[in-house]
Amino acid sequence: MAETPNRENAKSPTAEMPAADKPKLLRDTDDDARALARKLLGDARHMALAVIDAETGFPAASRVLTGIDADGVPVILVSGLAGHTKALDSDPRCSLLAGETGKGDPLAHPRIMAQCLAQRITRDSEDYERIRKIFIARHHKAKLYVDFPDFRFYRLVPQSALLNGGFGRAFALSASELLAENRGKGEK
Amino acid sequence: MAETPNRENAKSPTAEMPAADKPKLLRDTDDDARALARKLLGDARHMALAVIDAETGFPAASRVLTGIDADGVPVILVSGLAGHTKALDSDPRCSLLAGETGKGDPLAHPRIMAQCLAQRITRDSEDYERIRKIFIARHHKAKLYVDFPDFRFYRLVPQSALLNGGFGRAFALSASELLAENRGKGEK
Repeated sequence: MAETPNRENAKSPTAEMPAADKPKLLRDTDDDARALARKLLGDARHMALAVIDAETGFPAASRVLTGIDADGVPVILVSGLAGHTKALDSDPRCSLLAGETGKGDPLAHPRIMAQCLAQRITRDSEDYERIRKIFIARHHKAKLYVDFPDFRFYRLVPQSALLNGGFGRAFALSASELLAENRGKGEK
Repeated sequence: MAETPNRENAKSPTAEMPAADKPKLLRDTDDDARALARKLLGDARHMALAVIDAETGFPAASRVLTGIDADGVPVILVSGLAGHTKALDSDPRCSLLAGETGKGDPLAHPRIMAQCLAQRITRDSEDYERIRKIFIARHHKAKLYVDFPDFRFYRLVPQSALLNGGFGRAFALSASELLAENRGKGEK
């Protein structure tokens, strides 16, 4: 089994719980869990983004289009006029929620919640053209506004994640577990 | 039921913007916008919930099942063992994102983002039986766990909201605009 995070030290929602309760909430992260986590993050065309509102301090949720960079890091294209963009410039901490629902109980469908740090990609960055190309390959209509002066890219670099594969199937993932095998996928 | 906030004082994502920029982002809120906002919030079976993680301070996004109380306030049923629940007990500020995507551009589909304050509903509250009945009427399978000792209801009382009806169709809504005509709907 590849690197299992140290569950005693890892900062997870259950870190402070009595040991006896942990098995109920988090399973040991295995290859299937890692593969599902990377697929959910890598295939998503949109995600829910949680940020800290720059003005009110409230956590704020919004919907964003997402791409995936060559190293597996999610990428968003947003307007500098929008609240979530001002929030990211004020505090780079954010979270992404990926995974669609379908028929039946919404909680029976797998989803991943990744805590990330936002990196703004300026137009003079060496990463800019690669990210622009990757993003437009997935979202053709973004060509219509990607070059507007107020639009910009951010890489949202995962720090840790929680995969929920359905009832009773929760797994904690480290950043490296989440990203490693996504490499190269962004060019598709 | 929450009091109507004064819209001039309400903190919205655009409150600090120069007046000349506002027409680009926000349209005048009309009856159609109010009706769509209430429908999105009232009909949703699940939403994305943004909270402040009690341990890390990161904004955190998760998926929750939602019902709608008799006064139009969204209701969630969550486990006290889950991260989002600990977050709400530590800081009641949260946001909900409602509205499904479908074919085509995910951003072309309407969604609403409501900033809320969480109220825990204890089992000895006079509101408990009403909320339990309303929630189970929408989510039959919740009968299987609603009475587990770690599960509990919260009312997430909207303070303000942003409706995005598709490209260039954004509207700010006050709590009273959002809730008024949802009254009684929860019993359906």
